[in-house]
Amino acid sequence: MYNSLWLNYKKLSLLDESEQRIADILSNVCFNSYEAENPLCVNIKNEIDTAFEAFFGKKPIFSYNVEMTSGLLLNIIKNDSLLKEGYRIFSFENGYKIEAADYSGLLYGTFRFLELVRIGKLTSDVDETKNPDNPLRMLNHWDNMPGDIERGYSGNSFFFEDNKMMINDRTVMYARAVASVGINAVVINNVNVKGEASYLISDRHYSDLKKLSDILNGYGISLFVSINYALPLENGLDSADPLKEEVANWWKNKCEEIYKNVPNLGGFLVKADSEGRPGPFTYQRTQADGANMLARAIAPYGGIIIWRCFVYNCRQDWRDLKTDRARAGYDYFHSLDGEFEENVILQIKNGPMDFQVREPVSPLFGGMEHTNEMLEVQIAQEYTGQQRHVCYLIPWFKEILNFNTHMKEATAADILSGRAMGKKNAGMAAVSNTGDDLNWTGHDLAMANLYGFGKLSYDTSLSAEDIAYEWARLYMASAIGEKSFEEIKGKVITDTVVDILMKSWPTYEKYNAPLGIGWMVVPGIHYGPDVDGYEYSMWGTYHKADCKAIGIDRTASGTGYATQYKKENEDLYSSLDTCPEELLLFFHRMPYNYVLKSGKTILQYIYDTHFEGAEEVEKMSASWDSLRGMIDEDIFERVSKRFEHQVIHSKEWRDVINSYFYRKTGIEDEKGRKLY
Amino acid sequence: MYNSLWLNYKKLSLLDESEQRIADILSNVCFNSYEAENPLCVNIKNEIDTAFEAFFGKKPIFSYNVEMTSGLLLNIIKNDSLLKEGYRIFSFENGYKIEAADYSGLLYGTFRFLELVRIGKLTSDVDETKNPDNPLRMLNHWDNMPGDIERGYSGNSFFFEDNKMMINDRTVMYARAVASVGINAVVINNVNVKGEASYLISDRHYSDLKKLSDILNGYGISLFVSINYALPLENGLDSADPLKEEVANWWKNKCEEIYKNVPNLGGFLVKADSEGRPGPFTYQRTQADGANMLARAIAPYGGIIIWRCFVYNCRQDWRDLKTDRARAGYDYFHSLDGEFEENVILQIKNGPMDFQVREPVSPLFGGMEHTNEMLEVQIAQEYTGQQRHVCYLIPWFKEILNFNTHMKEATAADILSGRAMGKKNAGMAAVSNTGDDLNWTGHDLAMANLYGFGKLSYDTSLSAEDIAYEWARLYMASAIGEKSFEEIKGKVITDTVVDILMKSWPTYEKYNAPLGIGWMVVPGIHYGPDVDGYEYSMWGTYHKADCKAIGIDRTASGTGYATQYKKENEDLYSSLDTCPEELLLFFHRMPYNYVLKSGKTILQYIYDTHFEGAEEVEKMSASWDSLRGMIDEDIFERVSKRFEHQVIHSKEWRDVINSYFYRKTGIEDEKGRKLY
Repeated sequence: MYNSLWLNYKKLSLLDESEQRIADILSNVCFNSYEAENPLCVNIKNEIDTAFEAFFGKKPIFSYNVEMTSGLLLNIIKNDSLLKEGYRIFSFENGYKIEAADYSGLLYGTFRFLELVRIGKLTSDVDETKNPDNPLRMLNHWDNMPGDIERGYSGNSFFFEDNKMMINDRTVMYARAVASVGINAVVINNVNVKGEASYLISDRHYSDLKKLSDILNGYGISLFVSINYALPLENGLDSADPLKEEVANWWKNKCEEIYKNVPNLGGFLVKADSEGRPGPFTYQRTQADGANMLARAIAPYGGIIIWRCFVYNCRQDWRDLKTDRARAGYDYFHSLDGEFEENVILQIKNGPMDFQVREPVSPLFGGMEHTNEMLEVQIAQEYTGQQRHVCYLIPWFKEILNFNTHMKEATAADILSGRAMGKKNAGMAAVSNTGDDLNWTGHDLAMANLYGFGKLSYDTSLSAEDIAYEWARLYMASAIGEKSFEEIKGKVITDTVVDILMKSWPTYEKYNAPLGIGWMVVPGIHYGPDVDGYEYSMWGTYHKADCKAIGIDRTASGTGYATQYKKENEDLYSSLDTCPEELLLFFHRMPYNYVLKSGKTILQYIYDTHFEGAEEVEKMSASWDSLRGMIDEDIFERVSKRFEHQVIHSKEWRDVINSYFYRKTGIEDEKGRKLY
Repeated sequence: MYNSLWLNYKKLSLLDESEQRIADILSNVCFNSYEAENPLCVNIKNEIDTAFEAFFGKKPIFSYNVEMTSGLLLNIIKNDSLLKEGYRIFSFENGYKIEAADYSGLLYGTFRFLELVRIGKLTSDVDETKNPDNPLRMLNHWDNMPGDIERGYSGNSFFFEDNKMMINDRTVMYARAVASVGINAVVINNVNVKGEASYLISDRHYSDLKKLSDILNGYGISLFVSINYALPLENGLDSADPLKEEVANWWKNKCEEIYKNVPNLGGFLVKADSEGRPGPFTYQRTQADGANMLARAIAPYGGIIIWRCFVYNCRQDWRDLKTDRARAGYDYFHSLDGEFEENVILQIKNGPMDFQVREPVSPLFGGMEHTNEMLEVQIAQEYTGQQRHVCYLIPWFKEILNFNTHMKEATAADILSGRAMGKKNAGMAAVSNTGDDLNWTGHDLAMANLYGFGKLSYDTSLSAEDIAYEWARLYMASAIGEKSFEEIKGKVITDTVVDILMKSWPTYEKYNAPLGIGWMVVPGIHYGPDVDGYEYSMWGTYHKADCKAIGIDRTASGTGYATQYKKENEDLYSSLDTCPEELLLFFHRMPYNYVLKSGKTILQYIYDTHFEGAEEVEKMSASWDSLRGMIDEDIFERVSKRFEHQVIHSKEWRDVINSYFYRKTGIEDEKGRKLY
């Protein structure tokens, strides 16, 4: 059982003339350059048929490859303003046109056109041209072949079950949905490749991979797989040394075999030398040695190697005050700048740690001028409430994208899109938040992150608020015609949902670990507060709170992490005057009585934000309650249940964090609120 | 693969005359009252055959039911000094006699006789009479039917695999070993009865239960099973209310069915209303209502209901300062004194919390004059190093047994043996530390706890040191004849092992949670230090450490737990002058600068003991290393590996605990040692 996500088309109300006019126009569609054998063409037609039938109760009349002067016209054209996968939607006297330079672009234009209908924006002066900002717009599924999902909070995998691939109706629904927001690449299996997953690229699964890649290709999506770097060892070789000829040859032969069976495979995602995964370090080789060997093997087939930069010492001694995990990515990769093959992309997590609610942007963005880079964010809410708390992450991603690296004044978005350095292999990836739950993402509001990531990866200039609005409108208020939308207070729905979404991340941050220090979570599961949970562990994620002070000095006088940035950013973070306060404890060790710009001490700031955070959740919950009866009952009830928990659990966060600091300092809350 | 535990018989060296004389005498054995159809008789004979063949290279000549004047004579006799399951071993002019009032006693006498041979104590003036102190001497296996073991640290179950029972050679080895130390009852399945285990008492498993009970009976052991209190609900009834006639009848019929199939079943062990397990509270009935209903159903067959008292609120709010988990057992059960059927025994954990390295003795001992009681200890080292740290628990059990309850001045041992109140249903149970590892207990030195628990449950007057000596001699130095034992420094082996064992618990306590406060462990797995791990949890196990003080006031002015004891003990614990310091923080909230009798502050005591504890582990490890080449190489290597880990891990305990308090107080170690 699954729903149709934001493609949950309903009959339009057609209450006013403009809507009726649209219905009339759309009863005729002309598709030029139609290729009956091209799955993209077929799917474009099907999408229109499906949607129009739902909207208007009947399918349109389709014409192909003829001149028409009214209705909806779909055209493949060549001009300078339309690039690969771009589209233009505009109105003309007697209808609308969707134009694109390729069929992927035409598919995106079609999906966008259908959205415009549903959100009441198909005005007579509509004219929207988009070319994607990122060449690769990717989802990384951490699905394991037995069927579980690492860091999955929405049920089990819909790609795998009992070590077999699953290909069914849901696969198609998935492809339609993610294509509709611009995703053009997916990795279906967990980066931690174990057990049967090592043999995903083998005879056992080639025919399924081929079948799946065909389905995905029909929606403009390339299939990637995560691979086990040590695979040669499991196939009779006694080494996986990337500089050994027999190893390189083994991979060459393997790639030949793979592409013979799955000719459209996008390439491999590789987690090597990370958290117990094998890699080139085992053989005293560099990360470049490892990535390039694979890149050369896969290059003849147009394949890409996406090489993760999440490399650090995960067996650190917490007593070791010199090692700083935050430094690791840059330390391992920076010196290799320029050494990677053209078909290698380094996939870099947004921050130097691991998907905390707040981190600085990785200094690898702007730190490697001659290397293909890609951003990795996580919409699976591992550290941000695990899809039981609402936490709309698009505002956070916007901040990341807008970060000025001061490498040629490029923003992170400029770099990962490839435009700052003229790279074509670049992009954005998100660790997916999907599973086989009915609503795909567990929390219905978490669906906004899936929708939003896709939209943002296609157009990084979109605002988080606009994305939230359009998702809320599509998912919860699309059946309402534009005129009636105002009349029956449909706008209340979107206003309420957008308000909740936009507040959710700042609110979550308030009741979590304070001021950028991160990690105050229950180890392993990463859910719920445990201030010292990682404090005496081997994971390199410490706050070092004592009775006087908290935080890590990461300036030049401390671990030196800040020096990995360009000078302007090093200065920004190193000075107490300019360091953004939300990152204060990430970069500085500070006494609790240090006075912030607000005039509050750090300790009082901690108390205040935690009380505020929990209060704000109560308000969000009440706000959601006000939608009872106005939206789909199932959605309403599911989200209500989650809010019930979040209200309680945000108080748990509040009380544990506050009590921890109260007990450690012995200092009461200035406002006399209860601490334990 | 499994070894023979302490029954690892080897050829005796027979180096001197006395040994040679013994060999001669033992070449003839006469077994009076021999019943060829009685499995106990057969097994006694077999034990002698097996042992003598190993000792001397040949089986003895057996005679049955005739008068003989020399050799080894086995007799069933009736006299006042030999009670049920008791025995007497003594020498006479031309040999040795083993006498007993029943075959179980004769089996115990035989096993003891074989020990005496192996530990060089079969002197010409040997005369040892023993009657068991405890009617029930029981092992509780927390084995799950899929094959895993809850809190198991020695591999998987050897009773269950894939939801089926396993009965094989190992079962017999198990029965022989535990019978050899006096165990006369075993519960084979986990008290948390789930899944298939609910159907252990059903047609699916009766034939296997019968088979197993026959094997066990042959060694004087009764088979018990843990049952699911809610079983009627899984069998079509809509209630498990103990006062409903249909429920009582269901159990009556069930017991009839069970005993028809497994006539020698000892009875049931029940964990009800505890940690999510169902029970009579669901129906607003008392624990007595629940236990008695089952007791009446099973009484016609001589069965016993062992009802666990581990009942507490495991969903406590850590902010609730009034509720005290320590009070729960007494609060729930004390008022029911005298209400239980005669065939109900309450099984009470040694302390009010849960098997911590140090706790006071439960006030239920001495708190219920008219109720059958049984002690539950845990040799599975859940909180005491999980069989990776050496922690010989018999000294701790001795302290528990010797506790003066001040109920008629009876010690805990007097009560749980039944003698203080003239009860025949009473005894001691241990949660077992066994699994399918080759050496049964993971850590070879943990085997001393299995051996020791059996011995102690049979004779509570034995010293921990003597038990340790005999186990070490049997397991690691029994191949050595008494004369050569001195000559080849065999004594070094036992001295070294006994020294390690006797120091191990005090040492473990030193580097663990200080002064009786307990629980500073990683939640869930209960391994390794995490000072605040349970501090903000629902489990009711708090230390409440802040920057000034630590501990819980459990006197009348606090939670009142101390008032559950008889006046003398309440006074003892309530006064700072008399409260045993090892329990100081269990009963009192104390500032870190409070000066202990040693002249040290609590804080300095914490620092000192933690440094000492880790140092002592290094010494124990070095001490073990000195045995290289002197004992069985496999045993030596296995234990060495564990010591390697313990040396590192005890430092982890030391540093985490010390750093926690250092950071919380800001006060340095007086001796200037490194804190983090």
